[in-house]
Amino acid sequence: MTLLVVGSVALDSVKTPFGEAREVLGGAATYFSVAASYYTSVSMIAVVGTDFPKTHIDFLKSQNIEIDGLEIREGKTFRWAGAYGYDLNERDTIDTSLNVFENFNPKLLEKHKESEYVFLANIDPVLQHSVINQVESPRFCALDTMNFWIDNKNSELKKTISEVDAFVLNDSECRHLAEEPNLIKAARKIIEMGPRILVVKKGEHGALLFTKENVFSAPAFPIEDVFDPTGAGDSFAGGFMGHIAKTGDITEENMRRAILYGTVMASFCVEKFSVEGMVNIGEKEIEERFSMLREMVNFGSEN
Amino acid sequence: MTLLVVGSVALDSVKTPFGEAREVLGGAATYFSVAASYYTSVSMIAVVGTDFPKTHIDFLKSQNIEIDGLEIREGKTFRWAGAYGYDLNERDTIDTSLNVFENFNPKLLEKHKESEYVFLANIDPVLQHSVINQVESPRFCALDTMNFWIDNKNSELKKTISEVDAFVLNDSECRHLAEEPNLIKAARKIIEMGPRILVVKKGEHGALLFTKENVFSAPAFPIEDVFDPTGAGDSFAGGFMGHIAKTGDITEENMRRAILYGTVMASFCVEKFSVEGMVNIGEKEIEERFSMLREMVNFGSEN
Repeated sequence: MTLLVVGSVALDSVKTPFGEAREVLGGAATYFSVAASYYTSVSMIAVVGTDFPKTHIDFLKSQNIEIDGLEIREGKTFRWAGAYGYDLNERDTIDTSLNVFENFNPKLLEKHKESEYVFLANIDPVLQHSVINQVESPRFCALDTMNFWIDNKNSELKKTISEVDAFVLNDSECRHLAEEPNLIKAARKIIEMGPRILVVKKGEHGALLFTKENVFSAPAFPIEDVFDPTGAGDSFAGGFMGHIAKTGDITEENMRRAILYGTVMASFCVEKFSVEGMVNIGEKEIEERFSMLREMVNFGSEN
Repeated sequence: MTLLVVGSVALDSVKTPFGEAREVLGGAATYFSVAASYYTSVSMIAVVGTDFPKTHIDFLKSQNIEIDGLEIREGKTFRWAGAYGYDLNERDTIDTSLNVFENFNPKLLEKHKESEYVFLANIDPVLQHSVINQVESPRFCALDTMNFWIDNKNSELKKTISEVDAFVLNDSECRHLAEEPNLIKAARKIIEMGPRILVVKKGEHGALLFTKENVFSAPAFPIEDVFDPTGAGDSFAGGFMGHIAKTGDITEENMRRAILYGTVMASFCVEKFSVEGMVNIGEKEIEERFSMLREMVNFGSEN
């Protein structure tokens, strides 16, 4: 069924030890949509400025991403610039110019209100909450956030968290939100805030899925040449939600497989700048990496 | 079959945010032996001073650890003092007094020369090499090290690495030795140095097992109350080697299970000071944690 994503579309300038890219297609909703497009039909709600290149519009359409909800507003597109050193887990943000994204106020079209699967990428939790209210009867709704909202809109964020099925965040955000250094304890505290599923992204260390009863551990894909980690978390979310929407299966067992599909999409993402690593990949390549991840945690039938 | 370990026995003073312990039983060979003693008979080669408390001797014997190779030399026992903050992955060494350990020169008794399974805990790689030469026909020999030897005895260490079956080290040591920030590439470089098996310990992020062809990823046990991480790596190695020696099975599939048993022993270790967390544990508790780890990577039979 249709998967809706609400979030940013940006023009990114990125510098890594391996190269530099200027004003390339970026933003959480972009990475998410491109990753999810390999699994299901995706509708994107976002805003760009009148300077947003038509080639990017054409590219999104060519990926079968439905962009009737992509508003083009007078002004400049959101721009982000960042740099990574050899420790690709650490990045410096050089510039964030919100531009038209500053006044983003997602209004869903009638057709989007019927969406069954919804991903609220990292935006103001008040806006995330307004999107939840606009969707008539979502079957599975997931949320991402960032440290900025944990610090500045804490109570609003907690209210929004309490209304979603799944919460996706990285390990430092998890500790930060729970105010608890032990990750397992932190995760338990967040599960108490309401979501049935908590997904903790740990970058090169893989991901954990928590429910009230269980913990599932997924390895990272063993990438020898991480070129640019920008967008990895959103691509992960795209694979995760894409698989769930494709299968329509919201059991915990299927969530575990969804985490591996998320991991696969993140692994393609980090191999090139922008979304280039996720362009023109086939089902065979996706399934090959899925199988490899499966083998990485296979320790035989005997025990 | 008999498992031989060569390494340090120490008196540790440790401070964590949760408490403080003074002059408690420590050292790599101690943690290793206690962990491995739940799987197989262990012989320990080490040195202590005349000040080494008889209660510790009695304790080691009570764990069925064979200590005929524990030399008691005139002088003081090796002492180590360290402190941890809330980030238990980082520790400050406050004091290292090698004392009698400074002139440790392991001489194997005749009966030890027939050992089939050998673990060379973190000591000078020249001494590790001399132990390998003393063992007549080891079936499976594994090695640990530390950054100090990577910096100060690099060529000697590489020679020793080339002569063992398995090399066990942590992720920062792996990157350091290979001079390569990407962990997967670093592991590949180390496998090229000779060992068939490389085990990379990642603390709270679990462990990876590399062979020339494959990567296996093991989760960490989800411990909510890590009390003192001292000795976790050596306890891990003890469970790993203990399971291998117990089963006599050196296939890659069994190595994968051995890694999970190592993870289980490390999880008991970190719950208390010294080796207290590993005292009086039953096979049932070990198997329960093993099963829980297995469940943590189980994503159903469908895929």
